[in-house]
Amino acid sequence: MRKRIRDFGVEIGELSPGWSNAITDVAGVRVGHTTLMVGEGRLLPGQGPVRTGVTVILPHGDNLFEQKVPAAVFTINGYGKATGFEQVRELGTLEAPVALTNTLNVGLVLDALVGHAIRENPELGIQTSSVNVVVGETNDGYLNDLQGRHVRQEHVLAAIASASDGMVQQGSLGAGAGTMCFGWKGGIGTASRIVPGTSGDFIVGALVQTNFGRRRDLIIRGIPVGRLLKDAPVVESAETGDKGSVMIVLATDAPLESRQLQRLASRANAGLARTGCMLGAESGDFVVVFSTAERILRDQPENIVSRLSIGNEARVMDGLFRAVIECVEEAVLDSLFCAETVIGRDGHVGIALPVDEVMDWINRMVI
Amino acid sequence: MRKRIRDFGVEIGELSPGWSNAITDVAGVRVGHTTLMVGEGRLLPGQGPVRTGVTVILPHGDNLFEQKVPAAVFTINGYGKATGFEQVRELGTLEAPVALTNTLNVGLVLDALVGHAIRENPELGIQTSSVNVVVGETNDGYLNDLQGRHVRQEHVLAAIASASDGMVQQGSLGAGAGTMCFGWKGGIGTASRIVPGTSGDFIVGALVQTNFGRRRDLIIRGIPVGRLLKDAPVVESAETGDKGSVMIVLATDAPLESRQLQRLASRANAGLARTGCMLGAESGDFVVVFSTAERILRDQPENIVSRLSIGNEARVMDGLFRAVIECVEEAVLDSLFCAETVIGRDGHVGIALPVDEVMDWINRMVI
Amino acid sequence: MRKRIRDFGVEIGELSPGWSNAITDVAGVRVGHTTLMVGEGRLLPGQGPVRTGVTVILPHGDNLFEQKVPAAVFTINGYGKATGFEQVRELGTLEAPVALTNTLNVGLVLDALVGHAIRENPELGIQTSSVNVVVGETNDGYLNDLQGRHVRQEHVLAAIASASDGMVQQGSLGAGAGTMCFGWKGGIGTASRIVPGTSGDFIVGALVQTNFGRRRDLIIRGIPVGRLLKDAPVVESAETGDKGSVMIVLATDAPLESRQLQRLASRANAGLARTGCMLGAESGDFVVVFSTAERILRDQPENIVSRLSIGNEARVMDGLFRAVIECVEEAVLDSLFCAETVIGRDGHVGIALPVDEVMDWINRMVI
Amino acid sequence: MRKRIRDFGVEIGELSPGWSNAITDVAGVRVGHTTLMVGEGRLLPGQGPVRTGVTVILPHGDNLFEQKVPAAVFTINGYGKATGFEQVRELGTLEAPVALTNTLNVGLVLDALVGHAIRENPELGIQTSSVNVVVGETNDGYLNDLQGRHVRQEHVLAAIASASDGMVQQGSLGAGAGTMCFGWKGGIGTASRIVPGTSGDFIVGALVQTNFGRRRDLIIRGIPVGRLLKDAPVVESAETGDKGSVMIVLATDAPLESRQLQRLASRANAGLARTGCMLGAESGDFVVVFSTAERILRDQPENIVSRLSIGNEARVMDGLFRAVIECVEEAVLDSLFCAETVIGRDGHVGIALPVDEVMDWINRMVI
Repeated sequence: MRKRIRDFGVEIGELSPGWSNAITDVAGVRVGHTTLMVGEGRLLPGQGPVRTGVTVILPHGDNLFEQKVPAAVFTINGYGKATGFEQVRELGTLEAPVALTNTLNVGLVLDALVGHAIRENPELGIQTSSVNVVVGETNDGYLNDLQGRHVRQEHVLAAIASASDGMVQQGSLGAGAGTMCFGWKGGIGTASRIVPGTSGDFIVGALVQTNFGRRRDLIIRGIPVGRLLKDAPVVESAETGDKGSVMIVLATDAPLESRQLQRLASRANAGLARTGCMLGAESGDFVVVFSTAERILRDQPENIVSRLSIGNEARVMDGLFRAVIECVEEAVLDSLFCAETVIGRDGHVGIALPVDEVMDWINRMVI
Repeated sequence: MRKRIRDFGVEIGELSPGWSNAITDVAGVRVGHTTLMVGEGRLLPGQGPVRTGVTVILPHGDNLFEQKVPAAVFTINGYGKATGFEQVRELGTLEAPVALTNTLNVGLVLDALVGHAIRENPELGIQTSSVNVVVGETNDGYLNDLQGRHVRQEHVLAAIASASDGMVQQGSLGAGAGTMCFGWKGGIGTASRIVPGTSGDFIVGALVQTNFGRRRDLIIRGIPVGRLLKDAPVVESAETGDKGSVMIVLATDAPLESRQLQRLASRANAGLARTGCMLGAESGDFVVVFSTAERILRDQPENIVSRLSIGNEARVMDGLFRAVIECVEEAVLDSLFCAETVIGRDGHVGIALPVDEVMDWINRMVI
Repeated sequence: MRKRIRDFGVEIGELSPGWSNAITDVAGVRVGHTTLMVGEGRLLPGQGPVRTGVTVILPHGDNLFEQKVPAAVFTINGYGKATGFEQVRELGTLEAPVALTNTLNVGLVLDALVGHAIRENPELGIQTSSVNVVVGETNDGYLNDLQGRHVRQEHVLAAIASASDGMVQQGSLGAGAGTMCFGWKGGIGTASRIVPGTSGDFIVGALVQTNFGRRRDLIIRGIPVGRLLKDAPVVESAETGDKGSVMIVLATDAPLESRQLQRLASRANAGLARTGCMLGAESGDFVVVFSTAERILRDQPENIVSRLSIGNEARVMDGLFRAVIECVEEAVLDSLFCAETVIGRDGHVGIALPVDEVMDWINRMVI
Repeated sequence: MRKRIRDFGVEIGELSPGWSNAITDVAGVRVGHTTLMVGEGRLLPGQGPVRTGVTVILPHGDNLFEQKVPAAVFTINGYGKATGFEQVRELGTLEAPVALTNTLNVGLVLDALVGHAIRENPELGIQTSSVNVVVGETNDGYLNDLQGRHVRQEHVLAAIASASDGMVQQGSLGAGAGTMCFGWKGGIGTASRIVPGTSGDFIVGALVQTNFGRRRDLIIRGIPVGRLLKDAPVVESAETGDKGSVMIVLATDAPLESRQLQRLASRANAGLARTGCMLGAESGDFVVVFSTAERILRDQPENIVSRLSIGNEARVMDGLFRAVIECVEEAVLDSLFCAETVIGRDGHVGIALPVDEVMDWINRMVI
C-alpha cells in the first residue's frame, strides 16, 4: 500500500482535513469500487487486456430515489460523455448513486444503475416517474481494451454493495484502474477539509478520477516536479491516443441549495490548476456536487417545505470555496501518490509516480 | 381610458385573475411610470420628438438593498442590452427596483438606480458591497428620438416615488410610450392569475413592455386577428429600423428558490407564442422573475437560515407554469388593447389596435 | 394508413413545406424506426406487454464519426435523461446518429450506438478519441413495460440499417409506439418548410416524439379542439403516472455555426406552445439541431478551415426561425393525426385522435 | 517606472511572449487609459478623494459598429455588474470598445460608450439597430470615493482617443488606479504569448484589472510569496468592505468562432488560480474575449459569408488554451509588479508590492 502525500508530511492548503481525509468524511457518504484487471499482452479489441473498473459514490445509505439530495453539476470542458446533467440542472437533485467508469462503458453502467434503482423501487416507472442517473467517465484506452466495455451490471452492483464509509482506497483501482495522469499512473484520489463556521463546522470532500496532463506540467505545492523529474521514465500523454479527462465529485454537509452547490463546483478547476492542469482541448472535465444536509423526499403531498440554507454573504462561503480548491488539489496528488504501476494492453505501462524522487525535490524546496 | 380585453368578456386561459388582474396582485409589488411625450414633427437627433419613458417594478415597498428577494432571469433572445443578469444568476436575488426603458437609455437609467440605492443606503460601497441593478429595454426608435436618451435621473426617481400597488396603468405610457407591437401601438400590459394549492392559493403576475411582431402574425385566443384585419391601416415592423423586443417581469408570492423561479421564467415565451410572436432574430426578449414570499436580509450574521420552498414534484408547479403562460399572453394583449394612438418623430404613427373590429372578429369566432 | 393533417387541406403557418413535408426533405437526412409491439394484457414488469421502439435520425449516409456535422442542443425542460448534450455544447458537432427511445432504455440504446460506431470505425478509442452519442427519450410507461428496457442492440442496428430518405412513417411506431399526447395516442411526427433566401432556398425539417399534454389544452390552428371534443373518450395524462415529454430533432441545410443552430433550437417551444403545450413541470423537453451544409472532418491535419456561415443580421434568419416554429407545430399535429389506437399494458388504451370530429370543428371554425 | 516581472528574469510558463508582452501584440488591438487621482484625506461621499479611472480596449482602430469582431464572454463568478454579456452570447460579436471602470460607474461609462457609438454612426438607432456595450468593473472603494462615480463621458472619450497599440502602461492607472490585489496595490496588467501552429503562429493577449485576494494566498511561480512576506505591511482585503473582483480581457488573431472563443475564456481562471486566487464568494470575475482574424460587417446584403475557423481537434487549440493561462497568470503578476503605492480616501494606503523582497524569495527558490 502506497502512502498518501500527507503521510510524507506535505500539507496542501491551510484548512485541516477531516478524519479520513476523504469524501467519506462527509457523514453518510459511501464509496465503492470494482476493479477489473484481466489478461495481458496484445490488444484484442473486445477481449482485453482489461484495465478498468467502476467507482460509485453514494450520498447516503438509504434509498436515493425516495430520499434525493440537493445537487449541482458543472462542466469545465464538455468534451466528454457524462450523463444525467440536464435533470440535475433542472431539478437540483441527485436520485441515484454517482458512477465513474471508462468512456465507452457509460451506456452499460447507466443501464446497470437503472436496474439497481428498479430493484430498490419496484414501482419505478409504473407508479412513479423515471430515474435520472449520473455517470462520469474518462478514457483509459492507453492501458485498457476500451472497446470491450468490460464493466457490466454485476460489477456496478458489486461496487454499490461494497460501498462503505470510512477510509477510501485510492490509486489504480475502480474507475481509476487504467487511467494516466501527468504521464504517470493516475487513478482515484480523495481528500476532505473542515470549514469552521460560526455555528459549527462544515465538511467538504472530493473524489477524483484523474486521467489528464503532460509530465512537464505537474506541480506539487508550487514546485515544478514534472520538469524536475526530467530524466524519469514517463509516458507523455501527447503520445497517447487521447488527451484524457478528469471527473470530480464533491460532497458537503453544508446546507446549500442547488445554485450554491453549483458555485462550489465552479471552483474545482482552481484546484486542478494548482496541480499544473492546463485544461487541454480534448479533456472532458466535469464536476458533480451534492449536499447531505437535507433530503428531498419524493412526491411529498404538501406543497411547501422548510429548507435550511446558508446566506450568500455568509463568511463561511469563502471557506467552502477554499475547501473545494484544496480538496481537489490534494485528491489529484493523492491519485498519483497512491497509484501503483500498471502494465496494460500492448505492453503500455502506466508507471507509478517515483515518490522518493518527488519527495527529494519537495523536501529540498518547500519552505 | 381604453378598456382591457377582459372588459369585453374575453377570457384568456382557464385560471382566474387576481383582484386587479395585474402584477400588483402579488402583495407588496408596486409599479410606477414616468412618461415623456414632448415635441412633434421632424426628428432632430438628441432633441426630439420624445416618445419614451421609464417603468419601474418594486418587489416591495421597503429598502430592497437591505431586504433582497429571491429572483431569476431568463434570456429568450439575447439580442438586447438588459443589465444586471449575471449577478442575479450567481446570487439568485434582486436588490433594486427593476426598470424598463428605451434601448439607448440603459446606462443613464442604471446610473439613476445606483443613485437611488445610494440615497437609501448612505453606506453603500463604503461599508457595504456595491449594488446590482436590473434594467430592461426595447427599441422605441420608430416613434421616439432614441439618440436623445431623454430618460434622466429625475424621471427614474419620479417613477419610483409614484410607484403604487393596486391598479396598474397600461398602454402607451412609461417604458411603453413609444413602442410598437404587431404593427399597432404597443406598450405596457399586465395580468395576474390565482393558482390554487392544497395549502392555500398563490398569485402570479406579469408585466410586459411590448415592442415586437408583424401585423399578420397577431393571434387572439387562437383567432388570426392579424390576417383578418388585412385592410386596417398598420405599420409593418418590417419597415421600421429595428425588429423590437419584449421585456417580461414576473412576480409571485409562491416560495420558490432561484432555480425554480428560473423554471417559471423559461415558460414565458409560450405565452408570447400564443399571441403569434415568432421570436424574430433581432428581438431582444428577456424575463425577470422574483418571489415575494421571503426576504433575504443583507449581511446576516448567522450562517444558516431557514427558507420555505415548494417541492419540485408538488402538483402546484404545473399551475404556476400555466399561470405564467396565461399572464404573459393576456398582458401582451392588454398592452395592445390599452394603447392609444401615438404620433411620433417624422410623422410616424403608432396606430391603436382597432378594438371594435377586433371584437367583431372575436365575437364571431370564439366558441 | 391514416392521413396527415395537410391531407385534409389544413395548412399550418405561411411557409411552404418541402417535397415530403418531412425532416428528410433536408437532403441526406435519413430516418429509421424499429417498433416493438409484443404481448398483451397485464403488466409483468420486465416481460411485457411491449409497446415501445427506437427511432434514429442520421444527418447523412456516410460515416458520421469521420464526417461530423455542425450541431447544437437546447433544453426546454431538463426533467429528462437525454445524453450527449455536454459535448455538443462544447464542440458544436454531432458524430453519431441521434436516437429516440423510452426513458429507461437510454443506457442500452447509448451502448448500441457506441457499438455501431466501433463497427464503422474499428480504431475508435484505440487510435482515435471516444465517440459522443445523443439519445433522447420520453416515458411510454402508460402503455409499455418500461422496466423491461426491451430495445436492444439489434433493434437499434435494424433502425439504422433501415433508415432512408424520402417519406417518413409517422404515428404509433418507433420511439412513438407507446407515447401519449394531449390524452390521445401520440407518436412520431415530422414536417418541413422551405425558407426563401436571396441566394437560394433553405430547408428546415423537424421530427418529434410526442408524449405530453392534457386533452383540454390541445389547440389546432388556434381552435381549442381539446375543449371542443369534451365528450370524446380520452386519457387525461393527469391520471397517468408520468407527465410525459417531447423530443424535437431539427435539421437544416442552411450553413449555420453551432451558436446559430442553438438559436434555431430555442425557437422550437414556440411551435409547441401553438399546439397548446403548457410545458408541464415533469415533462422533459429537449431539442437537437444539426446542419447538413458542411461536414467537419475528424482530425484534420491543417489548422484552419473555411466555413460557410449566414450573417447574424441576414434577413433569412427570421425565416429560419419561423420555419422551426411551423415545422414543430405541424409535426406535433401530424403525430396525433397519424397515430393509430394502441392497447397496451393492463388494458390501458391510447386512443387515436378522432380525426373526423376534429375536422368537423376545424372546417367549421377555420377562416 | 516600475519594472515588469519579466524584467527581473522571471519567466511565467513555457510559451514566448510577443514583442511588447501585451494584449496589443495582437495586431490592431489598442488600449487607452484615463486616470483620475484628485483630492486627499477624508472621504466626502460624492466629492472625493478620487482614485479611479477607465481603461478601454479596442479590437481594431476602425468603426466597430460597422466592423464587428467575433467574441465571447465567460462568467467565473457572477457577483458583479458587467454589462452587454447577453448580446455577446446570442450573436457572438463585439461592436464597441470594451471599457473597464469602477463598480458604481458602470451606468455612466455605458452611456458614454453609447454616445461614442452615436458620434461614429449618426444613423445609429435611426436607420440601424441599437448598439451593445460591454463594460466591466471592480470595486475600488477602499481607496476611491466610489459613490462619486467620477468617471464621466469626457474621460471615456479621452481614453478612446488616446488608445494606441504598442506598449501598454500597467499598474496604478486607468481602471486600476484604485484597485487592490492580494493586499497590495493592484491595477492593470497585461501579457501575451506566441502559439506556434503548423501554418503560422498565432498570438494571444490578456489585459486584467486586478482587485482581489488576501496577502497570504499570493503565489509567484509556485512560491508562496504571500506567506513568506509575512512581516511586510499589507492590507488584508478581509478587512475592507468588499472582496474585490477581476476583469479579464483576452484577444487573439486566431480565427475562432464564438463557441471556440468561449472555450478560451473558460481557461482564464486557471491562470488566476496559479497566482493563488481563491475565487472568493463576493468577487465578480468576468472574461471577455475577441478574435481579430475576421471582421463581421454590419447588415451584409448577402446571406452567406465564408469564415475561417480552426478545427476543434487541431493541435493548436491546446496551445491557445495554454497561452490564455500563461497570459492571465503573468498579467496578474505584472499588475502587482508595476503598481505604485497609492494613498486614498481616509488615509487608506494601497502599498506597492515590495518587489525587492519578492525577488529575494524568488531568486532563492526558483530552480
